[in-house]
Amino acid sequence: MLRRMAKQKAGQGKQGKQDNQGKEAGGRITPRAEDYPQWYQDVVREAGLAEPAKVVKGCMVIRPHGYAIWEKIQRDLDGRFKATGHQNAYFPLLVPESFIKREAEHVEGFAPELAVVTHAGGEKLEEPYVIRPTSETIIGYYFSKWIDSYRDLPLLINQWANVMRWEKRTRLFLRTTEFLWQEGHTAHATHDDAELEVRRMLDVYGDHAEELLAMPVVRGVKTESEKFAGALQSLCIEAMMQDGKALQAGTSHDLGQNFGRAFNVMFQTEGGARDYVWQTSWGVSTRLIGGLIMTHSDDAGLVLPPRVAPIHVAIVPIFRKAHERDAVLEAAARIKAQLEAVDIAPEGSRYRDFLSVVIDDRELRPGAKYYEWERRGVPLRVELGPRDLAKGQVCVKMRLDTAAGAGKEFLPEAEFVATIRARLLTFQAELLARARARLQEQAVTIDTWDEFQRVFAGDKSTFAWCHWDGTRETEARIKELTKVTIRCVPLPGQGPDPEPGACVLTGSPSARRVLMAKAY
Amino acid sequence: MLRRMAKQKAGQGKQGKQDNQGKEAGGRITPRAEDYPQWYQDVVREAGLAEPAKVVKGCMVIRPHGYAIWEKIQRDLDGRFKATGHQNAYFPLLVPESFIKREAEHVEGFAPELAVVTHAGGEKLEEPYVIRPTSETIIGYYFSKWIDSYRDLPLLINQWANVMRWEKRTRLFLRTTEFLWQEGHTAHATHDDAELEVRRMLDVYGDHAEELLAMPVVRGVKTESEKFAGALQSLCIEAMMQDGKALQAGTSHDLGQNFGRAFNVMFQTEGGARDYVWQTSWGVSTRLIGGLIMTHSDDAGLVLPPRVAPIHVAIVPIFRKAHERDAVLEAAARIKAQLEAVDIAPEGSRYRDFLSVVIDDRELRPGAKYYEWERRGVPLRVELGPRDLAKGQVCVKMRLDTAAGAGKEFLPEAEFVATIRARLLTFQAELLARARARLQEQAVTIDTWDEFQRVFAGDKSTFAWCHWDGTRETEARIKELTKVTIRCVPLPGQGPDPEPGACVLTGSPSARRVLMAKAY
Repeated sequence: MLRRMAKQKAGQGKQGKQDNQGKEAGGRITPRAEDYPQWYQDVVREAGLAEPAKVVKGCMVIRPHGYAIWEKIQRDLDGRFKATGHQNAYFPLLVPESFIKREAEHVEGFAPELAVVTHAGGEKLEEPYVIRPTSETIIGYYFSKWIDSYRDLPLLINQWANVMRWEKRTRLFLRTTEFLWQEGHTAHATHDDAELEVRRMLDVYGDHAEELLAMPVVRGVKTESEKFAGALQSLCIEAMMQDGKALQAGTSHDLGQNFGRAFNVMFQTEGGARDYVWQTSWGVSTRLIGGLIMTHSDDAGLVLPPRVAPIHVAIVPIFRKAHERDAVLEAAARIKAQLEAVDIAPEGSRYRDFLSVVIDDRELRPGAKYYEWERRGVPLRVELGPRDLAKGQVCVKMRLDTAAGAGKEFLPEAEFVATIRARLLTFQAELLARARARLQEQAVTIDTWDEFQRVFAGDKSTFAWCHWDGTRETEARIKELTKVTIRCVPLPGQGPDPEPGACVLTGSPSARRVLMAKAY
Repeated sequence: MLRRMAKQKAGQGKQGKQDNQGKEAGGRITPRAEDYPQWYQDVVREAGLAEPAKVVKGCMVIRPHGYAIWEKIQRDLDGRFKATGHQNAYFPLLVPESFIKREAEHVEGFAPELAVVTHAGGEKLEEPYVIRPTSETIIGYYFSKWIDSYRDLPLLINQWANVMRWEKRTRLFLRTTEFLWQEGHTAHATHDDAELEVRRMLDVYGDHAEELLAMPVVRGVKTESEKFAGALQSLCIEAMMQDGKALQAGTSHDLGQNFGRAFNVMFQTEGGARDYVWQTSWGVSTRLIGGLIMTHSDDAGLVLPPRVAPIHVAIVPIFRKAHERDAVLEAAARIKAQLEAVDIAPEGSRYRDFLSVVIDDRELRPGAKYYEWERRGVPLRVELGPRDLAKGQVCVKMRLDTAAGAGKEFLPEAEFVATIRARLLTFQAELLARARARLQEQAVTIDTWDEFQRVFAGDKSTFAWCHWDGTRETEARIKELTKVTIRCVPLPGQGPDPEPGACVLTGSPSARRVLMAKAY
């Protein structure tokens, strides 16, 4: 039986099996160079992260290994939200259909993707409900009941929830009809305050992506065509996947007074006047897991930074004879207990992050086990046999060769335990450094349309810093010709320093370069 | 500005306001003796826990203070699930309508309560989906894909999710069309294993209710009429509310092979045969918050055990003159910082549970603040004025007079900080002891129908241990005549020792007393 990392109370009987041991385990992972989209699907399946729901169009089932990653993402983000003064709440799943129609741009953006409840309790409803595609409208309605005076502001709310958008083309984690996310909704007395909030939460997302997921991002502003339906302005973080495509990994919107007006969210100002509140909203979703996969993983499967890994260490006991078995398993249990007392949470953290360790004592040959734990992205593997025991050592292998360790290393048990925290944190830092270096090296500056076409020929993509004349028409034309979109106008300190130039398509004047790429 | 308990990073600007400072604060709480249901509604509203959604039939908005309680419930339960070998996963919100119909009793139980999605993405769907009322069917479907051999068993899965049941009569937390819950779903190779799991999870629920919520429960077996639609047997925990009514606070079901058959979940046994798996399911929901409220609260509002309290300490600074203000606020900040370093998590816990402390420096008179923090159930209040500062003391008042403290106490600051953990844990223990004593004292043994009618006259209820002849007809007749239901047949060690007797209604033979009460 495979021992799970969770601490088990004595006498509570059998533990559950890892759910990856069913029919689907052990399939092939297509090499990235052969077919990148297929590689992605293979990694998701072989790591036991998720599978297409099939019987529910465009939905997915998030399997335990995938959901455990989401839990770590949630814990980190939730701590950051609370540290910046936000409170969680929960609003209804269903939204009256008429609510969606109150904000003109909003309904245009979301109407085609809605799932509609027309019947309930055996009767046809007088007014249909839609399943929330996002909650600006219904939360706006409650804000109008909760907010009366400037003393009630800012109101800083977050919701962890499922949402639904009926997408035509779906892909596990990246775009599914139902997905899990958080949506922040805040109301402020002034536009300045709202803008500060929008920027603050973008930085929370950027820091989370870099510090937890080891996924470097470019922080910027969406163009008018790409902004959220109903916002004045949308900020975003964009990550570069290994194939050079961009992933919009999080957005933070300045809603202005648009939803305030639509839902009559008014307050008395300090001066005694009545005004609409200034609102923001911001969200990240299970899509982050897709970005995580495509930032670090390789042809052997998933690679996970330790801070987001559900399992940190897999111990594979090795023995041939029955009498060896007991000694090896006893040593494995001893090492597991020592490792599980190691907390890798950042210093000063409000939560604990103890290592989770699996002893894989299934009746399989060791090679099959190594292969499986590699596919599942476990950062560190320990091999433990009678010879190691005799020498008081363990054989350690990191998921990737980095400054945290390369090849098989033989270490005294005590040294291994004493240094594991540092080793895993070095591995985390290395993954971020590698991803940063890739972004740096692959990003290009393009000044001519010929070169632009060459760089983005066929399926090719990268992060390209290009001049753009600032018009919606040029943006649309570039997309039509090449499928490349403007990912963002970078915020200060992101991308090349601003310098004027000529639009890569039209040659018209441009104030600064923007980030262009094909996108997921 | 009111300072929130969350740690704030320097320079991150304004924090959010407690959302209870809006239009609705400061209303009346009806005394329990006057109108118990109205008292409940008033407490929920005045404590800022939740409000009726109104625009979405039977739904509620869970406000930040209520949601923070749910988060503490989740953290505790989730730890217990993982410690017993379970893994979290996530399955689709929508279930094909045909799935619900595959298990005969299940469809009969749930069909009248379903919300149905008939249109999506602008088109009419070929087959409608229902919003999950519970997930046995859809999870059964995936189990059939994941399970192949006895080696895949037991499969121990839990899901945290929202579900929807179109209820006619709703009440905040206790019965709402949408609610938040967790649903455990497990598959086993033998009926014995499944039965052990059903019992194990009932004990997890019982321990959680008693240790976290300080809510004593009776553990028992549901009658045939009251069991889950599709189960062989349902176990439950029943808590006694202050009005003597019972609240079914959690259930754990032995599903036998019913869903295994309906969804063809087969496995190869160790002996090489093919058999259907034995399944269980178990759940608790936001209803627990209703039980928590009706176990401890009083006419002054909410009372919370410290382990589930979102805010542990409210510090009310008292000053008249401007020069006093600075000194008092400085001392308040110093005390807050010391308290927030105190961790009240159980020893050996896998998580941290630091105290959360609010400094209430709003421009309101102190009495109004005391009143508000009482209504919100904060276990401990500190009053701090210039005279206290001069004496190096604090004035401490517990939410209820108990062995943890009675009336206002004046303590040296250092002593207060050094003893707060013990004080709060004593308060927690006292709340459980009081609730246990009430259950003990109010429960009655009834042997005649006359007395039964007297005890349950009008709206009255209590926990009554009565003999029952074991027939569905008698059970239905008792319910029809008095609205009293059989809450459970107690498990060993719960309620009076088994002794034969005569049915309280029919006089027919009975093997043992069962628990009867009116119920929420």
